[in-house]
This record gives sequence, C-alpha cells and structure tokens, in this order.
Amino acid sequence: MPDSRRKMEDDVKPIEDLSRLCLHTITTRPWDIERAIDEYARGGVSGITVWRDALEGRDPRQIGRRVRDAGLSVVSLCRGGFFASSDPTERRRSVDQNLQAIREAAALGAPHVVLVCGADPAQPLEQSREQIADGIGEIAAFASSEGVRLAVEPLHPMYADSRSAINTLEQANDLCERLDHSAVGVAVDVYHLWWDPHLEREIARCGRDGRIIAFHVCDWRTPTRDLLNDRGLMGEGCIPIPRIRGWVETAGFEGYIEVEIFSTKLWKTDQNEFLNRIIQAYRKSV
Amino acid sequence: MPDSRRKMEDDVKPIEDLSRLCLHTITTRPWDIERAIDEYARGGVSGITVWRDALEGRDPRQIGRRVRDAGLSVVSLCRGGFFASSDPTERRRSVDQNLQAIREAAALGAPHVVLVCGADPAQPLEQSREQIADGIGEIAAFASSEGVRLAVEPLHPMYADSRSAINTLEQANDLCERLDHSAVGVAVDVYHLWWDPHLEREIARCGRDGRIIAFHVCDWRTPTRDLLNDRGLMGEGCIPIPRIRGWVETAGFEGYIEVEIFSTKLWKTDQNEFLNRIIQAYRKSV
Repeated sequence: MPDSRRKMEDDVKPIEDLSRLCLHTITTRPWDIERAIDEYARGGVSGITVWRDALEGRDPRQIGRRVRDAGLSVVSLCRGGFFASSDPTERRRSVDQNLQAIREAAALGAPHVVLVCGADPAQPLEQSREQIADGIGEIAAFASSEGVRLAVEPLHPMYADSRSAINTLEQANDLCERLDHSAVGVAVDVYHLWWDPHLEREIARCGRDGRIIAFHVCDWRTPTRDLLNDRGLMGEGCIPIPRIRGWVETAGFEGYIEVEIFSTKLWKTDQNEFLNRIIQAYRKSV
Repeated sequence: MPDSRRKMEDDVKPIEDLSRLCLHTITTRPWDIERAIDEYARGGVSGITVWRDALEGRDPRQIGRRVRDAGLSVVSLCRGGFFASSDPTERRRSVDQNLQAIREAAALGAPHVVLVCGADPAQPLEQSREQIADGIGEIAAFASSEGVRLAVEPLHPMYADSRSAINTLEQANDLCERLDHSAVGVAVDVYHLWWDPHLEREIARCGRDGRIIAFHVCDWRTPTRDLLNDRGLMGEGCIPIPRIRGWVETAGFEGYIEVEIFSTKLWKTDQNEFLNRIIQAYRKSV
C-alpha cells in the first residue's frame, strides 16, 4: 500500500479482536449452514448473517438456537426486497415474500433484514423507486411489530438495470426520510459505495439519524472479471475500507462488521483456508 | 417498450434524418479506418469520431482530408486523458501524450478530444482527482491554441478503480468550474450516466455554461456479461435514450449524436449488416 493511502487510514483505530466479526453464509457458500455455524464458531467469528437459501428445508427457529448454542449471534437475514416490477402481480407477491422474510428473521432471532430494493429494466428508474417506497411502506409496520428492522442497501450503479434502483447512499437516505419509520434504516456496503464522492457526507447524515443498521465489507479487484461474483477479500483491492469504517464509526455505528464476498474463484478454494484468510484480512485490512 | 416508458419519451422530437449521426471507429472495430470512412459515407452517416488506434501508421492530416472528401465530418478524436498515476514519471508521460493527442486532433481537423481521465487503484480517488485537475490544467492552453476543445467524460462508477476517478456528471461539472477554461467541457455518455438521479439537473447545469461538447449513445443490456465489451445497440437495453437526448437538447446541445458501442458480440457479426442495424436503431430508439 502506498504511503499516501496508508496515511489517510492511520487515524482509524485498528481492530483488536474478533468480537465484531460477522460472516455472511454466502461468503463460504460451499458449506451448508450447519457446517458454517460450526466452522465460524471454531474460528472465533462472532456473528453470522444468514442467507435465505441456506435456510431451505430448515426450521429458522432451530437454526437460530443452534447459532446461539455455538456462541454466535444472528446478525441479519439476507435478503428481502425486489419491490420493483412492471407487473402488479409480481409487486403483490414481493410484498408477501417480504412479510415472510420478516417472519423468518423473527424466528431466527435476526434483528434486521437486508433489502435489495429491486429494479425492472422494462420501466423507468423513477417508477421503480416509487414502487420501492410503496413496498417498504407496506411492510414497515409489520417489521416493527416483529422487532425486526429493515436495512435498505444501496447497490452499485452497475446493478441499476435489474437489482436496485437505489444506487447511492444519498438516495437511500432520502428514501428513509420520506418513509420516516423507525424500522427503516440503511446498510452501508463498501463494495457498492466506495466510489461515491459524497459518501462521507451521507454516512454522517444517516448516522445522525441513527439509521446505520449494517456495515458490509469486501474489496474491489482490478480488473473485476464478473459483475456479480468477482468480489475480493479485504486488502486485495482498492477500497479504502479502514477509512470508510472510520466514517461509519464516527457516525456512531458500533455494530458488526459483516464480511460478504461473492467469488466464484474463492468458493473454489479450501473453505477452511479461506476462513483463515478472512480472519487475517479482517485484522489487517479492515 | 411498456407504455409508461414510451410515454415519458413522447415529448422528444423524433430524429428525421442522419445529419447528426456520427459513428466511433471502434463501433465497427473490424474495419480499418479507410473502410470505415467509405462504408459510413455509403450508409449516409454524417460524422466520424476517430479512435487513435485507427490512426496507427497513418498521417492524421491525410485521414482528415479523406473523411471530408467522403462527405463526412471529423467529430472528435478519441481519446486522451489517463492523468492519474501514483508514479510521477507516468504523470509526466501522460501530459506529453495528451499534447500529442491535441496535435493529432488539430491535424485531423477534429474540434475536440475526449478525455478518459484516469484512476490508479494504488492511490485514493481524491488524489487521482487532483492529478486529473492538474493534468487538464497543464494542457488546456495548448488545446486552445490549436483550436481543440477537451471533453471530460465521466465514466460509470464500475470504472472508478483504474479508468476514471470522475464518475458522475456533477464531478465533471465541478472540475470544469474549477478549471474555468473555455477549452474544457464535458462529454455526456448515456451508458455511463443513465442511472444517476441527478442527471437531468447536471445536464442543465453544464448546458447553461455552454459546456456540453459531446453526446454519446449506446444501451445497457440485461444481463451485462462483461464490464468492458458488452454494450448494447440502442433499443436493446434499458437506457431511456430519447429522454436523455431531450435533456441534452433542452440544455442547448445541437451537435452530433455519437454511436459508441464496444461489443465483442456485435464485432463478430457482419459489419455491413451491423451498420444497417445501427441506422435503424438510431431512427427508432434515439
């Protein structure tokens, strides 16, 4: 790392233990959830974010218990959302699926659900954004009643066609202010947001309002060979992760630091070695 | 196209002839420049933007003459830039290369050079941005003296690691205001900017200042399979091109509409058929 970059990160307090380290089950995708729980616990990881596909055929209540028995915390359920569609039937179905995700989160003991808001290439972004606001508006009260918060995750603009019409933290903050519901906040993911010249300002803004629900890390590789599954391990890329962590902490966030890596390449490696590398990278590059 | 999307584009005056149609030589990459000039002219295309690789081994003055003799206009030289580097020798070299590009543009008779500003994953984006401002500052007076303008092209955030630290039109506008030089303006490329919620505002802003130098079109495919070379033909994707063209024209731009498509898939097709498809797409979806 060049001196200049190191310098900017010098002010951020280094991480000393693993008490805030959380892994997304998708990060070690080849492991089923039972194996992931055991291995994470053995490695000293503190939290787990459960992807819904990992719950298939399981009782979320039992999985939640198993996580806690292993000494881990359930950090989040990933993911709900996908509210935008030019088809009204699809929009109706999406609200139902989100209510179901909230029930699963409550059963699991997950304090929040991450929302990938959705987009439909067949309609203008503005229309998708209205449908997103409507969709979250429809589920917020139920989430509250179940003790679950909803984390709007702005996605990188390269996903604006079909995954999310919310592509900057400013947009996510605007949406939260518009909905003005205590259950609704944001997930700050460095992969999606690192390039944004207004990132520091917008992190401070949602921090002020107590709206930072989650913080996700991984890295941006040069070159990135795939739009979806070529994320890097922290330190492998160009994202100034410690600096962004500093902003998030200055904004009052003290929660888990969630490692969320989609990588065809890393999924092919030995997952125990990969887990060790994640822990080293967490200490060194987060 | 769904009614809703069509509706938003209804106000934009349809294009009636090919007098503003310009092709980038890279769009029909399998053709050398001589062939491209002949085929574009035969097809009724009005302008050509010359990529520097197409000039290799040629005298730009002769190519300029050949373009005009064929009844076409030279619209632009593509591309200069790449001012950002953690290596000072590289930065010095990049200024020299840009001066050379300006000389080539003048010889060719191209009224502007497109700038892909550069980024270096080894240094923070802010540092790259300072180097970009310095680099353009160093070449602006020479460009003026050669009668060539410099079009800062904000690139999609997925290129922030290594191609450009200028990723929104707002940033490009800020940069132009900071440099405050009549030679420096912007290139608006729908592929890079379509997702931006502030696009209409920022187009109006640079229009007010007479800074829209170029307008590039192509489309965003779903799914996009490659970060570089999977651009779509206009109408194949989700970008509201007529709508953005409307904003650009409302902002006072009356120049060429430049078709810039990088597509491994389309380069493999018969280029004469592809040229016909481009002309149809231009009439129907721009």
